[in-house]
Amino acid sequence: MSEAEARPVKTRYDVTLPFGIGVPAWPGEPMPVITRLADMDKGDDCTVTRLDFAVHYATHLDAPLHFVKGGGDVAGLALDVLMGPCQLVRIDNEIDAIGPEAFEIAPGCTRLLVKTRNSALWDDPAHAFHRDFTAFTPEGAQWLVDRGIRLVGIDYLSVQRFYDSEPATHRILLGAGVIAVEGLDLRAVEPGEYHLTCLPLRLVGADGSPCRVVLDGPASTRQKDRRQDTSEQP
Amino acid sequence: MSEAEARPVKTRYDVTLPFGIGVPAWPGEPMPVITRLADMDKGDDCTVTRLDFAVHYATHLDAPLHFVKGGGDVAGLALDVLMGPCQLVRIDNEIDAIGPEAFEIAPGCTRLLVKTRNSALWDDPAHAFHRDFTAFTPEGAQWLVDRGIRLVGIDYLSVQRFYDSEPATHRILLGAGVIAVEGLDLRAVEPGEYHLTCLPLRLVGADGSPCRVVLDGPASTRQKDRRQDTSEQP
Repeated sequence: MSEAEARPVKTRYDVTLPFGIGVPAWPGEPMPVITRLADMDKGDDCTVTRLDFAVHYATHLDAPLHFVKGGGDVAGLALDVLMGPCQLVRIDNEIDAIGPEAFEIAPGCTRLLVKTRNSALWDDPAHAFHRDFTAFTPEGAQWLVDRGIRLVGIDYLSVQRFYDSEPATHRILLGAGVIAVEGLDLRAVEPGEYHLTCLPLRLVGADGSPCRVVLDGPASTRQKDRRQDTSEQP
Repeated sequence: MSEAEARPVKTRYDVTLPFGIGVPAWPGEPMPVITRLADMDKGDDCTVTRLDFAVHYATHLDAPLHFVKGGGDVAGLALDVLMGPCQLVRIDNEIDAIGPEAFEIAPGCTRLLVKTRNSALWDDPAHAFHRDFTAFTPEGAQWLVDRGIRLVGIDYLSVQRFYDSEPATHRILLGAGVIAVEGLDLRAVEPGEYHLTCLPLRLVGADGSPCRVVLDGPASTRQKDRRQDTSEQP
């Protein structure tokens, strides 16, 4: 048995929105169109789905190319940033603009997910697009960059507020090479430390991609350490 | 630092084919169409890609629904099968039909990837679709099911040979709930034990999905065990 199987993963959370249940598109972008190229129910040998969609739909990530001319594409994003330890923080429901020092970032943290009042919107996944979601101010984005964050995720469809006149938050994050993960469903997850697995498609030349996002944890390390401590006692 | 970060992962392999470089489509299915809904190079505020494709393109997986009427969809596939230890075996280049007992399956193995002579085809990723690829016979598929395999991956675009008159290999695997992963690029990976992460999109009602597939290893466990053995010597 490998170490991975022996590792006492306590709980695994799929924090990806299901695709195909009416999650709203970004205003001005089309809803995905899901059709069948072949269908066993119509007498074909097999069933084959065709998917036509904008890559920033539902749970997805942004590559630099989304807001940076000549920026990096999705295929170029580093797996070592997309997979690894992450911190999940809860933002108070009163906060709708996340600025600098809005919460404490653990030392060494490079992957950060924020759970806000937005999460409640996913109780009705097919709601009409909600413009007043909580997101980062440009100053909050710069604070993340200055603190060494390489990946930031949020529980609605953008890291940036809808009514901002300039896309400064996006430009600051993507310009610094920070991966922005948007449209997470964090309802079932409590604040703490997790192991993040955030895998987009390997899209060459694309500015974004839907992704599957999984959290393992929390605190499997501490649990294991505790068990080891106990066994070492006389 | 979490246990995951402390784990001495030796090497990480992205065994996913890049999407958008001309990988051939299955005969009769369309090539993906990748366009821009918005483009900074044309004066837009940001760049937004649109993707129109059949879900069995390039590196992808099959859910039961692909060949089983009323079978399970992609969204219903278990993450605990898609993530975990796996065995990678090398099939001799002379073999073009993988039958029962074609290789040794390690005790307890539930995830299996086979590297065949197909792998060399990816040296030219935009080659014309190759019909004479190596894949499993129906008897080989039944052997995998009987041995408790839950996920099987192969290095060309189907687990089943192209000229089979009936889709028996698919029906046996998918009928037993085995996840079939197709279109892996295993060229850089040697036989051995790895930790597999194979994440499709969370597509509701879909028979397949492109997926991102990552292998970690090999043998980080053995390395760790060896180190521990050393430290325990007097």
